[in-house]
Amino acid sequence: MKLASLKHGRDGLLVVVSRDLQSMASSAAVAPTLQSALDNWAETAPRLRDIYQRLNAGSHPDSSPFNQSDCASPLPRAYQWADGSAYVNHVELVRNARGAEVPESFWHDPLMYQGGSDAFLSPHDPIKLPQTQGWGVDFEAEIAVITDDVPLNCGVEEAGGRIQLLMLVNDVSLRGLIPGELAKGFGFFQSKPSSAFSPVCITPDELGDHWRDYKVQLPLLSQLNGELFGKPNAGVDMTFNFSQLVTHAAKTRPLCAGTIIGSGTVSNKLDGSPGKPVSEGGAGYSCLAELRMIETILNGAPTTPFMDYGDRIKIEMLDSSGQSIFGCIDQTVEPQK
Amino acid sequence: MKLASLKHGRDGLLVVVSRDLQSMASSAAVAPTLQSALDNWAETAPRLRDIYQRLNAGSHPDSSPFNQSDCASPLPRAYQWADGSAYVNHVELVRNARGAEVPESFWHDPLMYQGGSDAFLSPHDPIKLPQTQGWGVDFEAEIAVITDDVPLNCGVEEAGGRIQLLMLVNDVSLRGLIPGELAKGFGFFQSKPSSAFSPVCITPDELGDHWRDYKVQLPLLSQLNGELFGKPNAGVDMTFNFSQLVTHAAKTRPLCAGTIIGSGTVSNKLDGSPGKPVSEGGAGYSCLAELRMIETILNGAPTTPFMDYGDRIKIEMLDSSGQSIFGCIDQTVEPQK
Repeated sequence: MKLASLKHGRDGLLVVVSRDLQSMASSAAVAPTLQSALDNWAETAPRLRDIYQRLNAGSHPDSSPFNQSDCASPLPRAYQWADGSAYVNHVELVRNARGAEVPESFWHDPLMYQGGSDAFLSPHDPIKLPQTQGWGVDFEAEIAVITDDVPLNCGVEEAGGRIQLLMLVNDVSLRGLIPGELAKGFGFFQSKPSSAFSPVCITPDELGDHWRDYKVQLPLLSQLNGELFGKPNAGVDMTFNFSQLVTHAAKTRPLCAGTIIGSGTVSNKLDGSPGKPVSEGGAGYSCLAELRMIETILNGAPTTPFMDYGDRIKIEMLDSSGQSIFGCIDQTVEPQK
Repeated sequence: MKLASLKHGRDGLLVVVSRDLQSMASSAAVAPTLQSALDNWAETAPRLRDIYQRLNAGSHPDSSPFNQSDCASPLPRAYQWADGSAYVNHVELVRNARGAEVPESFWHDPLMYQGGSDAFLSPHDPIKLPQTQGWGVDFEAEIAVITDDVPLNCGVEEAGGRIQLLMLVNDVSLRGLIPGELAKGFGFFQSKPSSAFSPVCITPDELGDHWRDYKVQLPLLSQLNGELFGKPNAGVDMTFNFSQLVTHAAKTRPLCAGTIIGSGTVSNKLDGSPGKPVSEGGAGYSCLAELRMIETILNGAPTTPFMDYGDRIKIEMLDSSGQSIFGCIDQTVEPQK
């Protein structure tokens, strides 16, 4: 099943989207918003699925064309956005670039930060910032899951069963503000402006065999200013899978339906060496910082700049037949007026 | 104006509460929930105020008795909870206890962390935890504000005008989990289980002259197991006021209506010395950790234990005539079944 939220008010208007992303149908009779559907998922999901089946069969009486540009993020605002850092390869690169070791605990205790969830960007909306100079504007291509209610202190099996939907994320980061914030010890805040999610979220069964071990076993494509920048496989080198990340988040408190848990920047470390750029036959990267770190390791300093006004990032995932699964995150950095 | 959310579904049922907390009236004709009222505050606030005036005048036709135990937190779940640490005295004590300096920047750049906001505890509900041993269960008595929409990068004057409501918080903390989490660099997550807020939230004008310079100029009372533990004045030693905290939160992203911003643990450093216990004529403390730090400074080790099952914390604020302003947070630590 595929769902999207059309831009409408603060919480969007939930629609069911056909598998090929060409048509949609209203879900108003079931739930007006995705949050309201998730609040009562056991009851709403089968009814939404029924609409989905009729839509795919071409037998829905009131379908209309689906346009990704009309979409808000699936949850335009959410009660929780917690982002893991499950690709420890990414963390290792960051640390290597500044000559620091990865603590051994990072391989068995997930990193996770609490993100701002009150005002997500729409997938085709600009990233509006009052400045770029010194802020180190970066994208981060990630996968995220949406859960329904997760009980406090639940195990990994139960946690895995609470994962109801999947989507893509651009976790916009201001690299220039991170060192100062982390030095204060309270985690990220100003260094993480609003994130954007893919136009469409899907139930895991849409991925068939590509949803395995609670990981999405497909390449995540990042295109920067029209050039392919990264295609790492999200199922490779993911040290903690999504059920482990949900369990981590629920260790000391329950998670409310509509909780979004992110994977962290997808990163592959193929055959033991740091990832290579796509132009050199590698899997490339899901953020600029990673390439800049590799440049630092190889040449002593980064040469690729961070994003500036006018730079455009597209994030997408294709199925085996080359069809877009979630639609495309497509954002340009713009000055805030 | 005073508002509360009766326990009802996921978002509570908004009611208007009389100034003396004795009676209430439905707000259903204006807004069913506090979030829905805040989403359209310019339109709803005057209408809620009208109900409030009739309730206080005794001329409301459908008032009923108000019972704090029927209340959820004013926002049972919120889109954002960001907690500052505005009483730098508190931070200084923590650091002194372990022989560390307070960086100079802490006096002009607020500390703030992103908290979990998807599942707040009700003010009279137990703090249920699967364990206490090693977790260092502590309360933190604080003040919080609720804003309506705050634009990205707004100034302190505008930010101050976006503060619509005030309430009290128990920011439950698991001290035993904090050092490990902070060492990982991503801030608090598991060390901050669900917080609870006072039964009632109020508009700032309810405080009259005690709302001054965007600070609440009244003692915050914490009672532990029936004994007064702290009565520091929330208007004293608050290095950053609430408009500065809101501005800090909105530096790189807008804040959605219903954003909650906390003050951090209220702490007084009277006449230059560390605060004394109430029993020795001091203002006492708003968390156990602070007393334990003073014990560490004076005696080399803490003697006061953290909270265990059965321990009870009450947090309240009284007006000049001894009347409770926000109602009482009243929680007991209990095992999770």
